[in-house]
Amino acid sequence: MGTADKAMQPVIAVDAMGGDYAPEEIVKGAVQASEENGVKIILVGIKAAVENELAKYDTGHTIEIVDAPDIIKDGEEPAFAVLRKKNNSIAVATRLVKEGKADAAVSAGSTGACMVCALQYLGTLPGIERPIAGGAFLGFAPHTVVMDLGANVGVKPYQLLNFAVAGSIYAHIFLGIDNPTIGLLNVGAEEGKGNEQAKKAFPLLKNSHLNFIGNVEGMDIATGKANVIICDGFIGNVLVKYSEGLAYILNHWIEKEMKDKVSEDVIQTLTQKLYRSMSSAVAMGGGPLIGVNGVASIAHGSSRAAQIVGTIKNTKTALENGFVEKLKAGLEKAQASTPVEE
Amino acid sequence: MGTADKAMQPVIAVDAMGGDYAPEEIVKGAVQASEENGVKIILVGIKAAVENELAKYDTGHTIEIVDAPDIIKDGEEPAFAVLRKKNNSIAVATRLVKEGKADAAVSAGSTGACMVCALQYLGTLPGIERPIAGGAFLGFAPHTVVMDLGANVGVKPYQLLNFAVAGSIYAHIFLGIDNPTIGLLNVGAEEGKGNEQAKKAFPLLKNSHLNFIGNVEGMDIATGKANVIICDGFIGNVLVKYSEGLAYILNHWIEKEMKDKVSEDVIQTLTQKLYRSMSSAVAMGGGPLIGVNGVASIAHGSSRAAQIVGTIKNTKTALENGFVEKLKAGLEKAQASTPVEE
Repeated sequence: MGTADKAMQPVIAVDAMGGDYAPEEIVKGAVQASEENGVKIILVGIKAAVENELAKYDTGHTIEIVDAPDIIKDGEEPAFAVLRKKNNSIAVATRLVKEGKADAAVSAGSTGACMVCALQYLGTLPGIERPIAGGAFLGFAPHTVVMDLGANVGVKPYQLLNFAVAGSIYAHIFLGIDNPTIGLLNVGAEEGKGNEQAKKAFPLLKNSHLNFIGNVEGMDIATGKANVIICDGFIGNVLVKYSEGLAYILNHWIEKEMKDKVSEDVIQTLTQKLYRSMSSAVAMGGGPLIGVNGVASIAHGSSRAAQIVGTIKNTKTALENGFVEKLKAGLEKAQASTPVEE
Repeated sequence: MGTADKAMQPVIAVDAMGGDYAPEEIVKGAVQASEENGVKIILVGIKAAVENELAKYDTGHTIEIVDAPDIIKDGEEPAFAVLRKKNNSIAVATRLVKEGKADAAVSAGSTGACMVCALQYLGTLPGIERPIAGGAFLGFAPHTVVMDLGANVGVKPYQLLNFAVAGSIYAHIFLGIDNPTIGLLNVGAEEGKGNEQAKKAFPLLKNSHLNFIGNVEGMDIATGKANVIICDGFIGNVLVKYSEGLAYILNHWIEKEMKDKVSEDVIQTLTQKLYRSMSSAVAMGGGPLIGVNGVASIAHGSSRAAQIVGTIKNTKTALENGFVEKLKAGLEKAQASTPVEE
């Protein structure tokens, strides 16, 4: 890679302290991403601890460390503590973005704390109250994203329209789908079905610039009938957790049913595949908080190095494809034709 | 069995015309149930068609036929047509219960039509606006029922309390569980989580006579953390359809993954088991519409003889254990301490 390309490498501030396997696996993933993905990494955390981990790798001093001495202790509510302890690693990483010293932040720490920092330091795009949680939902339906997956609970119809805008741009940039189809999760296919929220969202979607294909039902999540399936975060949260629970149960079931019939290796391959197929987000790594006025990515708390690499890769994709700028334009376009309810 | 027992056999009016495999499989199931389950069957339907089917079996004229000449044609909305065509088989079977000529009605016809007939001819129990849909949800969690599964969409908090009362009695009678645990489906375990509906339902449940264990989350449906999991019918409907879709996808996946590794027989056994484990309601047969002032049972439209036998068995269980009477008493007890919101 030439000097010019190197100069254009995006700079990503990685929270080295967040996640179940921090700092070991986070630093490992960050080092790997800096070597493979053409990004410049800033590791943010307790300086001595991060240096200690980084010393394991021969990085040629290309990875910078920024000290973040504040620690959130067990028992503290991270989303509150992060505002009080301003030199916590999540807060410091997010401020690096605000200050223009990094292009994006990545953390596998508390989702609540990441959200609070993103809101505090970067703010949201027009019409967005809280970042939207969402992304590819099920490995079995790889061309389908579901939004919202739990960040926005009890939403108004215009927020479902925002989810659709965000999902459409997300599916285009991250899944490479042109003009993604949008489905409204509902209890029946016909217009007029559902609760008040769904009934009121339907015409907003129908009259929007989006490729709305109407209501979709529960089975359509599994079969991937639409590229973007939108729902209240309450149901999205239940669905994502139900899928996780089922993946766990199914793997135990497969082990029990197959143990006398095929080798252990075959069972292990099968259960690993099933786990990935049932929980796409974990396997892919995380991605940017959607609706933030800047790129702040979250990875699953259980992320190991591979998921950190995946999250950094998705973060780079967001930066290179103008995810935030496109989302801002899309939201403005949709909102121009839709009255925002109070 | 002695004469006294025979005299006490419950009389069940079976809609012979409803369901994808009517009248063949319905009549077959009804005959089998009358032989095995100690019930007296009245078959309701187009007389000639039912006689024709019944002639295949040596029933010794113990099965009565009641004519129901009205037919709902393709393209008619069954839930409306059934009120106009009063001699439709569902309406006639339900009226036999109202008139005391049968103890219960069973149909695999349109759920909407069954509901309308139950409301019209039997009415609902106190505080119930529409019958509650629910029952065992997942074969993997055989000691857990979920209510509501789609009949009641956009419910008020006091209705969630009603679902809990119904679920508790249902789990006791049909699953044999003493003092069933109740969980409120939510996005987090702590009190105060969730949408307005869940936040308001929590104290009603906490202050009730029920064995409420607090909020449960999506994974708890799969692992069966509570015996009764209650939720708005919107989410219940999505969950039941999502599970059906996943069962379909998973079975194709197993076939593909295993076809070079084990015999076709092993695959078939496995996929059949998985189907049953993913869709308990279909495998078990249906059961009574919950909240109706009388026993009117619905079976899945795809029911074959085995599911009709199962539904009739569940119907007999409901009658013998005073399901309706216990539900009425439970609802009155819960409502005595809970203001009904308008």
